[in-house]
Amino acid sequence: MNKNKTLSPVGKSVPRIDAREKVSGEAKYVFDMTFPGMLVGKMLRSPHAHAKILKIDTSKALKLKGVKAVITAEDTLKIKFGSNEFFFPYTVDQYPLEFEKVRYIGDEIAAVAAVDEETAKEALSLIEVEYEILSAVFNTVDAMKPGAPQIHSSMNNIGVMLPVSFGNPDKALKESDYVREDIFYLQSAAHCALEPHVSLGQYEVSTNKITLWTSTQAPFKVREAMAKVLKMATADIRVIKLNVGGGFGGKLEMLPMDFAACLLSKKSGGLPVKITCSREEEFSFTRRKHPMVYKLKSGVKKDGTIMAITGEVIADGGAYCSYGPTVIAAAIMRIFMVYKIENIRLMGFRVYTNNSISGAIRGFGGVQSGFAIESHMDMLARGIGMDSMEFRLKNATDPNTVTVNKLIISSNGLKDCIKKVGEACGWKEKNGKDKTDGDIVCGIGMGIAADVMGSKMYKSHESAGSIIKVEEDGSVYLFTGAADTGQGSDTALAQIAAQELGVAYERIRVKAADTETTPFDTGSFASRVTFISGNATKNAATDAKKQILEIVALELKCDSNDFDIHDECVVKKADNSKIMDFDKAIQLCYSFDYGRLIIGRGNYNPKTTPIDFRTGQGNVSGSYSFEAQVAEVEVNKKTGEVRVTKMYDVHDIGYPVNPASVHGQIEGSIVMGIGYTLYEDLKFDQGRVVNPSFSKYRLPRSIGIPKIESIFIETNDPQGPFGAKGMGESSLLPTAAAIANAVYDAVGVQIKDLPITPEKVLKALKEKEDRG
Amino acid sequence: MNKNKTLSPVGKSVPRIDAREKVSGEAKYVFDMTFPGMLVGKMLRSPHAHAKILKIDTSKALKLKGVKAVITAEDTLKIKFGSNEFFFPYTVDQYPLEFEKVRYIGDEIAAVAAVDEETAKEALSLIEVEYEILSAVFNTVDAMKPGAPQIHSSMNNIGVMLPVSFGNPDKALKESDYVREDIFYLQSAAHCALEPHVSLGQYEVSTNKITLWTSTQAPFKVREAMAKVLKMATADIRVIKLNVGGGFGGKLEMLPMDFAACLLSKKSGGLPVKITCSREEEFSFTRRKHPMVYKLKSGVKKDGTIMAITGEVIADGGAYCSYGPTVIAAAIMRIFMVYKIENIRLMGFRVYTNNSISGAIRGFGGVQSGFAIESHMDMLARGIGMDSMEFRLKNATDPNTVTVNKLIISSNGLKDCIKKVGEACGWKEKNGKDKTDGDIVCGIGMGIAADVMGSKMYKSHESAGSIIKVEEDGSVYLFTGAADTGQGSDTALAQIAAQELGVAYERIRVKAADTETTPFDTGSFASRVTFISGNATKNAATDAKKQILEIVALELKCDSNDFDIHDECVVKKADNSKIMDFDKAIQLCYSFDYGRLIIGRGNYNPKTTPIDFRTGQGNVSGSYSFEAQVAEVEVNKKTGEVRVTKMYDVHDIGYPVNPASVHGQIEGSIVMGIGYTLYEDLKFDQGRVVNPSFSKYRLPRSIGIPKIESIFIETNDPQGPFGAKGMGESSLLPTAAAIANAVYDAVGVQIKDLPITPEKVLKALKEKEDRG
Repeated sequence: MNKNKTLSPVGKSVPRIDAREKVSGEAKYVFDMTFPGMLVGKMLRSPHAHAKILKIDTSKALKLKGVKAVITAEDTLKIKFGSNEFFFPYTVDQYPLEFEKVRYIGDEIAAVAAVDEETAKEALSLIEVEYEILSAVFNTVDAMKPGAPQIHSSMNNIGVMLPVSFGNPDKALKESDYVREDIFYLQSAAHCALEPHVSLGQYEVSTNKITLWTSTQAPFKVREAMAKVLKMATADIRVIKLNVGGGFGGKLEMLPMDFAACLLSKKSGGLPVKITCSREEEFSFTRRKHPMVYKLKSGVKKDGTIMAITGEVIADGGAYCSYGPTVIAAAIMRIFMVYKIENIRLMGFRVYTNNSISGAIRGFGGVQSGFAIESHMDMLARGIGMDSMEFRLKNATDPNTVTVNKLIISSNGLKDCIKKVGEACGWKEKNGKDKTDGDIVCGIGMGIAADVMGSKMYKSHESAGSIIKVEEDGSVYLFTGAADTGQGSDTALAQIAAQELGVAYERIRVKAADTETTPFDTGSFASRVTFISGNATKNAATDAKKQILEIVALELKCDSNDFDIHDECVVKKADNSKIMDFDKAIQLCYSFDYGRLIIGRGNYNPKTTPIDFRTGQGNVSGSYSFEAQVAEVEVNKKTGEVRVTKMYDVHDIGYPVNPASVHGQIEGSIVMGIGYTLYEDLKFDQGRVVNPSFSKYRLPRSIGIPKIESIFIETNDPQGPFGAKGMGESSLLPTAAAIANAVYDAVGVQIKDLPITPEKVLKALKEKEDRG
Repeated sequence: MNKNKTLSPVGKSVPRIDAREKVSGEAKYVFDMTFPGMLVGKMLRSPHAHAKILKIDTSKALKLKGVKAVITAEDTLKIKFGSNEFFFPYTVDQYPLEFEKVRYIGDEIAAVAAVDEETAKEALSLIEVEYEILSAVFNTVDAMKPGAPQIHSSMNNIGVMLPVSFGNPDKALKESDYVREDIFYLQSAAHCALEPHVSLGQYEVSTNKITLWTSTQAPFKVREAMAKVLKMATADIRVIKLNVGGGFGGKLEMLPMDFAACLLSKKSGGLPVKITCSREEEFSFTRRKHPMVYKLKSGVKKDGTIMAITGEVIADGGAYCSYGPTVIAAAIMRIFMVYKIENIRLMGFRVYTNNSISGAIRGFGGVQSGFAIESHMDMLARGIGMDSMEFRLKNATDPNTVTVNKLIISSNGLKDCIKKVGEACGWKEKNGKDKTDGDIVCGIGMGIAADVMGSKMYKSHESAGSIIKVEEDGSVYLFTGAADTGQGSDTALAQIAAQELGVAYERIRVKAADTETTPFDTGSFASRVTFISGNATKNAATDAKKQILEIVALELKCDSNDFDIHDECVVKKADNSKIMDFDKAIQLCYSFDYGRLIIGRGNYNPKTTPIDFRTGQGNVSGSYSFEAQVAEVEVNKKTGEVRVTKMYDVHDIGYPVNPASVHGQIEGSIVMGIGYTLYEDLKFDQGRVVNPSFSKYRLPRSIGIPKIESIFIETNDPQGPFGAKGMGESSLLPTAAAIANAVYDAVGVQIKDLPITPEKVLKALKEKEDRG
């Protein structure tokens, strides 16, 4: 069928399945879609951080020529939605359109659809809203004070609380040889996906069905929320993901604009309505990273044994809950995957403020946690005069263990990662050595991390399904609900399908992420797709293969269990001898006598247990990935500027389905990590984002990116498809600490407040000098 | 989920699943589709009936402003396509665009795509073609003569020959008490679907993929042909059927316009190209009914036993083969289903002429056969002085028999149909009685028929597949490749899915006939959909139900085999006691612990054997349907006008999935039969259709339609889904003979030449009078 066949594709860096359409520019994004009669939709947002809505008058807007629909909450069923409903019903706190009060600058209260952009903008200006301004609160300290303005009904504005406690940390602290306290401050940040949010809704009047094209990481979650707020059957709502220009956690939820596009279409008698976010709206009104404060007090023995970790984590959640519970959990729970620890007490608080909504962003809370914990660990090691690599090796988790909070860790290459990264960077030769050249001082620093692949946090389950349809000429469709947002999951799933079915990669056509035509999949988050959707795909291919082999066995009057398919051949398992070509087998299936259409179906639900939010106990993921990272930096003592000169990443990813893709993910994560560590800072003034543009919000640029050396440790996970584990986020987790620790190694100051700006470095150097 | 639930829907006249969108006018047809930049395509057709193509010069057309592409055969791979390739490789005789010669007025030789209709038309006129005119032949008598112009390479222009011979017909004729010969003439006719053919092709440059929206009864057959002529993988061609405004056999094949729309899009750099047929093109250049001549010589015993049937059937096939073999087979083989007959010799010839292409039309050759055989049978009965109903009862086939040519007949209500229709119409009281009122004479006549449900004539198999996807809220998608062209199959399949899954009809959403997203299905023809696609759907629902019950059993620690689902409840099979609601069961499947996505898959391949075209042996269908029909007519002796006053149809359809739909099919068939019997006649002059419009081509109108009484005989076919058999065509088969026999009953003349025009009746009456 194909001249250039890639046989046994798993483990090979095959080109992306969407490479041609991407590089040619033919790839379609929602923004590119247009329909006859399509309307322009716009959202009316609150200009106030906290206010009662007294009255909304849309009559003037409705009278404007060219306006086809105006909606407010009065046109809705006033049903709230939220992303962590299953565990925290009380975190379901947002209406598609607010009507009682607004809680941040940007809160959606109305929407219009008009024949063009100008008219839509004018219509917005004609909607008259009467507010009663309320006092607002913009930081967690003030928000948690008794008597602070109540943003929702929750006590002291604490939206989510996660008390984690195991062992006897007080006793353990007392028994420690060295105890220290640190406070770490982590700023907010934006996702900065190149493609802003776009929603295109179309309502079908006669059938009462909705189609929504939206830039999403989780079409089935969008559908679920939409079905809830519209009280519709899920099968009457079709959510379609086209190409997505990056999500990074920012496209995991139904947004009010998704809802508005659909309802405006309904109100317009079925005309399609497209709503697009400008870059400014994207920065100001979508989702953002939780700013956090980590207060840590920990104790160690002289031999390096961590005795106890205690403290609290306070996150600024902004106006609504979004993925708050998941983020606060991730901000705390990852420590159990990384360090053997018996005594722990960490209190997590996610606090409402009148800032914009904090939500999921690549790594969830793990990036914040990674910086705090891994900086803190370096300081603990330093306190007992131990090499920080040795300290980490001493305390790192082992394979096939159960942690104190009941995480079940099977494959675990963490210690190998640490050793390997140490070798790769020449840790022993470089760490702690003076490397000064004029004003420039070199330093080296380490961080380690672990990550989930999937997270048992979804409403009811964490499954994925796949369907494999083998056509009569042997070409193969793979239907998956998984959402490739640029990370290459369609490619990896095609490789897995081809490998398991025993055919060339080039046979596979992936059709993905359309809630109507593809099986359910919770979405692209928690680094779950390769692991969970990959297993579902493998199972679907196994099912298809079984059917093909049954027909071969019928024809040959043999037992189908004796056969397998490899490299486009049906073979005898016993001696791998060739029975017939795959094409021949398919011809047989579709022959006159058999007429057996090959449709394989697969499902995968990882064996996990949910986190108990009263204790922190539970096994959230079917397996865990691990890594160690080293940063080499140059610090300019005169200017305070930090330059990352080299990054090393050694990663236990189980087995790389597509090595080039995995390296790409690691490099992308590290670059994102460098950005958060050194540059990025989403700043607010009285609840208003003050740098909502790429000219004001600093991102790393290609010329500043260091060489990144990335190495795999293959642990061949027993649960993973072909041994593979997920890794879309984890390389981001230790980067900030590795850089901060390297800065310390260079100039002896530990920056505990991100981003590490030249000003902060200079100030710390000055303070150090002042101290003598 | 739904307030108005229809439980156990099979057997109930539920409203059509597409009723709302159809009656609101919101239903989309290909004609309604439009894309930005869409081009208008037009076909260049031969003005000659038979000519060599010497030269085609497209240069002037290409230079015209607004012309985006011009294609001729030189732009193609010059690969032929045909519809009966598997059995008759030599009948694959048509190029997508011809280049050596043209064989009928309308043969496609080039196509253009331009920015608008005017420009496209002008471009056509600028293409210069040099022809060398060849002698043409327009009737089968001339075409079969030695030395006739050779249209293809086949001897005497016989494209297909089917010699059927069993027993010793010569001996049996000699042993007969009464032998008679008759010749029947059957005219051509057009399908007259309200929606003409429309093709919209879109090529994707970067991925080399094609999407074709086309008005078709068989998207997978169109895809197969397209993949062949373009040498592409089937999975790179997506054929989508939207709503179809009738097919009646005329939309069963890829047409050159389908091909041209796709290739023009490719040549235009990926712009979509739409080609529509005008009504004139529809009449003149698509497909039409085979005109046929039946020469029959048969013998009977005095007791009514049919001893032998012999003769020949000659069909004018026009310029290309199309579905010729299937039609000629149907024109002969149906007799075995209807009459117990041991001695038979019938020679079938399908002859090439330079008329337009004859192809499939509702009933295939069965309509022609029905008229000839059932008229002939009346005359045979008359010859031995036997009541024609008694004669039919005497010779009709029985249940659970194997015919002389190895048809395996299981359920068979034919005799019950005959008896029942006799009772319903008052046969004994009316037949043969004088019913004269002035110039008006009443008459009554009968015809009987049988039909297949599916026909093992497809390239390689006759299967259908279905997928059932149960969403997390219990709403259900049914994916089927079956093509609803207005007959209501989507509705019937939804009923079958709901019945087997044990849920309300309202839960089902049907997604059909998209070669990408739905399983393979050969298409809507041979009355196969309810039977074959219905079984596939039932199997998919069984598979889905099994999975649901497995989860219920796991939860309850029971054996899933002890459970079933009925009327939205999981019940214990033993005592039908309720275990839990269906909704509860689905919640369980999609729960945290199980995370089991419900995807059912089903496949059905009837156990049949192909017809051996050297003898006529083979069991083409998994089961057979039967019927008896009676026509009551008034003949105006003065004007010769025949008016059908009442029709009775008693039909063994196994079990009616949707009684209203079945009645509708029967009524539609009968009306079509009345049209063919009395009015319709596609006329040619030197190969040119002379009446290509609804003003010149006479169709029956609503005011002329008689009351139709239709009655079901339920035989509960053991192979059929819930006992159902197919019946989309069979009511058309006996109508012409029933009317002709009624005319005889009224005025004593047997018209053997359709249509039965007033002129023919008057002429026959005159001849009868002249004979005295």
